[in-house]
Amino acid sequence: MAPRCEIFSQGEEIITGQTVDSNAAWLSQKLIAAGFELTRHTAVGDHLNALTKLLVEISERADCCICTGGLGPTGDDLTTEAVSKAFDAPLEFDERAMEQVESIFKLWNRPMPKVNRKQAYFPKGAVRLDNRWGTAPGFAIAHNGCQFYFLPGVPSEMKKMFQASIFPDLQERFSLAPLKRLSFRTFGLGESAIQERIEAIHFPEEITISFRAGLPEVELKLWFPAGFDQQEIEAVSRQVSKALGSQLVSVEDGFGGPKGIVQVIDELLTESGQNIALLETVSSGLLASWCVGRPWLQESSIAPNEALLGRDFGLSGVGGAEEAVLLAKAVRERSGADYGLVQIWNFDQEILTEKRSSMELISALSTDEGEFHHITQVGGSLDRKQNIAAASLLNLLRFYLQKLF
Amino acid sequence: MAPRCEIFSQGEEIITGQTVDSNAAWLSQKLIAAGFELTRHTAVGDHLNALTKLLVEISERADCCICTGGLGPTGDDLTTEAVSKAFDAPLEFDERAMEQVESIFKLWNRPMPKVNRKQAYFPKGAVRLDNRWGTAPGFAIAHNGCQFYFLPGVPSEMKKMFQASIFPDLQERFSLAPLKRLSFRTFGLGESAIQERIEAIHFPEEITISFRAGLPEVELKLWFPAGFDQQEIEAVSRQVSKALGSQLVSVEDGFGGPKGIVQVIDELLTESGQNIALLETVSSGLLASWCVGRPWLQESSIAPNEALLGRDFGLSGVGGAEEAVLLAKAVRERSGADYGLVQIWNFDQEILTEKRSSMELISALSTDEGEFHHITQVGGSLDRKQNIAAASLLNLLRFYLQKLF
Repeated sequence: MAPRCEIFSQGEEIITGQTVDSNAAWLSQKLIAAGFELTRHTAVGDHLNALTKLLVEISERADCCICTGGLGPTGDDLTTEAVSKAFDAPLEFDERAMEQVESIFKLWNRPMPKVNRKQAYFPKGAVRLDNRWGTAPGFAIAHNGCQFYFLPGVPSEMKKMFQASIFPDLQERFSLAPLKRLSFRTFGLGESAIQERIEAIHFPEEITISFRAGLPEVELKLWFPAGFDQQEIEAVSRQVSKALGSQLVSVEDGFGGPKGIVQVIDELLTESGQNIALLETVSSGLLASWCVGRPWLQESSIAPNEALLGRDFGLSGVGGAEEAVLLAKAVRERSGADYGLVQIWNFDQEILTEKRSSMELISALSTDEGEFHHITQVGGSLDRKQNIAAASLLNLLRFYLQKLF
Repeated sequence: MAPRCEIFSQGEEIITGQTVDSNAAWLSQKLIAAGFELTRHTAVGDHLNALTKLLVEISERADCCICTGGLGPTGDDLTTEAVSKAFDAPLEFDERAMEQVESIFKLWNRPMPKVNRKQAYFPKGAVRLDNRWGTAPGFAIAHNGCQFYFLPGVPSEMKKMFQASIFPDLQERFSLAPLKRLSFRTFGLGESAIQERIEAIHFPEEITISFRAGLPEVELKLWFPAGFDQQEIEAVSRQVSKALGSQLVSVEDGFGGPKGIVQVIDELLTESGQNIALLETVSSGLLASWCVGRPWLQESSIAPNEALLGRDFGLSGVGGAEEAVLLAKAVRERSGADYGLVQIWNFDQEILTEKRSSMELISALSTDEGEFHHITQVGGSLDRKQNIAAASLLNLLRFYLQKLF
């Protein structure tokens, strides 16, 4: 069994929503990859009773807890006092910590305010954790069989202290077997459609499945317990990839994020030295904005209305796939790019902004081997339509480059 | 005493740190503004026992709890089942909810997968909360004197459901003394620059000041306790607006977000019936994508490199403000739009992608009264440069339309 770890964030700015608690997410990723089971995140504000109660609760539930925030010098920094009260450990002055806090002020060429003296007191039995990046030292202490680490809430200091002091200490103190993970990034399938695709696969019981939905792509993640057979992982990976078919954009074996469509296209075009020219309508520049700084984006324009297509391409009335293909060809020829990509629809502005209306979106690609197109229905908010239109157009190129037609 | 409210976030992606829990922060802000005391945020993963235990705990501590996540159709969505178990309320089928889920799939033109049937079951005694923005309906249920609301974890759906169903219900159910708030949206000032601008203002002691930094605009918020004198609030508002000067984009008296540059421009152009044509470089379509669906965006193109400006506008070498102004004029004349907006830089791709390098960005505007330009230095990540480039260009038009030059 993996040891159970909790994250505890302290601070009025978190509980009131002024700050999004990104520390908890960062720490969780590190701890899960290291082999802990993450069981809870909790945040409370600057109230001594709430803090004390929570510390006792956690000591009864978890094997390990990382706490951030509340180590500063001011009156609303109550973490150390709460630990002292919760674990019945009187505060003791630490000369070495005092010197460190003083030396930081010397470095900054500023007199140390008296309140900072508070930062050199730790609960009896605690081990000081040096902070070479700010004034607040941290500390570690065990209670009820739970190992607690207290770190400042400033993300840059917290991260450096975690890497320098806590991560090595965890490795020594716990018997950790890191998990393995497979992530599959898909485009064109919702969560439930993915579920149906993989329904027939017989997954070993120990595997956990999770989803991450975001516009415009959806991720499927498989978690394998430590020590799970690598060959079996690869077999599962092949089965899932096959089930997802051409909707699978990329697979990642590890804890980085799997590549999105833009990254996949980036690799393919960088390798071949080819480039693209775009004509966007519904996505209104969103696709070009995703490609910012990529040398393979040769040019791009946006046609918010029909009139423009008439003026620039001599098109009288926008019809269907035939016109889209003609436009893609014209965009490719005019630009001299290797690929011309165009998206059109019927330019009915009401359909665009009305979330209950669904639009027919035609994506077309021109290549030196000929033209290709794809028709899809897109509903939902303007934001959803815009994102799906952008991704669909690039996905058409992915299909061509990866020979998925 | 303000009623005590907790936030409970459910989901493997939060507990494992794949997703930063921004829902908790957003909800906390809304609830504090409404007059609640926020006492705890808790997140747990997809484990029935952990969920059940937590629900019982919260019901014993809080007067109200907003829960997000775990209402989806798949096997790892366990919230409803956990509520049923924790509050001893057997699941019941809700015909109306089933119809709503089905109608969403009809709208999307996709068959409803069988698993989605699960989303029409609620614990006995629960009140359904309609979700007009996605497939997962929510529900409300009371236990141990604590009023629980369950919402999907997808932020856009969660926010809309909170505003539509929960906020009005809270007002009826609890006796709340709401805070008052003033929000100032600025462009072109960092937090510390704003701080300096308002330093000389004598704020009443009860006012709390907070910042919200987001690309590309920064918000300053002033919080007033319930019952604070409205005339005094207005006086403070005038003083702060004056101190922020032309960098102030909009002020909002209340809890909506203050208008951003796009909305301000939208109102001005809609009123005057005028339109714009864009030529983007650094922002690479991002500005056009912000203007999606706005009838005043007449046309837009992107020049990722210098060669294109030579071909399309006969420009030999991109220099400084003079060329930018010429380009803006050409874009305006060619398009026939009321305003031509252009942004250029020296097209050094390394500067663009290197976050330690700063670029000189020239924005230019052509009008029937002549041309205007603005030069600014932009550093930081590619994302930051892209966002600031887009906003700077539109901000130049705002200066012109609001006569701030």
